[in-house]
Amino acid sequence: MSVTDELLQNAESYAASFDKGELPLPPAKHVAVLACMDARLNPYGLLGLAEGDAHVIRNAGGVVTADGLRSLAISQRLLGTTEIILIHHTDCGMLTFTDDGFKASIQAEVGIKPSWAAEAFPDLDEDVRQSVRRILDDPFIPVKDSVRGFVYEVGTGRLREVK
Amino acid sequence: MSVTDELLQNAESYAASFDKGELPLPPAKHVAVLACMDARLNPYGLLGLAEGDAHVIRNAGGVVTADGLRSLAISQRLLGTTEIILIHHTDCGMLTFTDDGFKASIQAEVGIKPSWAAEAFPDLDEDVRQSVRRILDDPFIPVKDSVRGFVYEVGTGRLREVK
Repeated sequence: MSVTDELLQNAESYAASFDKGELPLPPAKHVAVLACMDARLNPYGLLGLAEGDAHVIRNAGGVVTADGLRSLAISQRLLGTTEIILIHHTDCGMLTFTDDGFKASIQAEVGIKPSWAAEAFPDLDEDVRQSVRRILDDPFIPVKDSVRGFVYEVGTGRLREVK
Repeated sequence: MSVTDELLQNAESYAASFDKGELPLPPAKHVAVLACMDARLNPYGLLGLAEGDAHVIRNAGGVVTADGLRSLAISQRLLGTTEIILIHHTDCGMLTFTDDGFKASIQAEVGIKPSWAAEAFPDLDEDVRQSVRRILDDPFIPVKDSVRGFVYEVGTGRLREVK
């Protein structure tokens, strides 16, 4: 049995005990979280989020990419969120390589260099600040009163704000 | 108190009872999930995922964008995942508008048209298939043996595979 099949069994249990009914489409807490995809970072447990509370956007690094900006614009403009929480974390894979090295290794294997930036970063706090700045500079995100960036410490479970 | 401050209080509780220790960086279940950012779709509850199990990538629609492909390439090439689970869901915001309309409304307000595609879609199952195809066609994702697409039913909690 594949891991996917194993997780589908969990999904059957979830449906069997599902009692949330028809929740509204717009997030109840008017918050969008943008976090790294890292397996150890669980935004639901960490922030105490339940179904219906918040948009959760995630990618490699929790970096603010064009796709992150697209998702945030849709979140605010169509679904009424007004606060943004950015979360990077310690021991991140993005600290372990460089864009140049990663893309050269792909080019050596596949013969094509990806047209995307890998978005690796050498300094965690500085990349959180970079992500905040990319949001503040974006013309399509209307509400920027509460854009705050954090580092999650995977070994302790603590969330630290980056100023 | 802002909602962000309220969620930070939850984060303090999470840290206070944190007992997971130093989990490894690569996901234990070797799975990457790519799902919509929708507030009602909780991949942890639905799939029974715990901290350390799986990469979770999310954006508006659960669409396979360049950023999704970047994240999946990093997930497989640097962190050893081998299975991909795609999740769209019923009552999705992406079914309620068109790229042209959304971008024209932004242009009318801001004076600039976003250079990104909004990635709205009129047919849920067809967009799941489209997302699967984008992955199968990508030259930078090495392992494609298990790329499966699903629709999550927000009113019932059920997960339905799209063939």
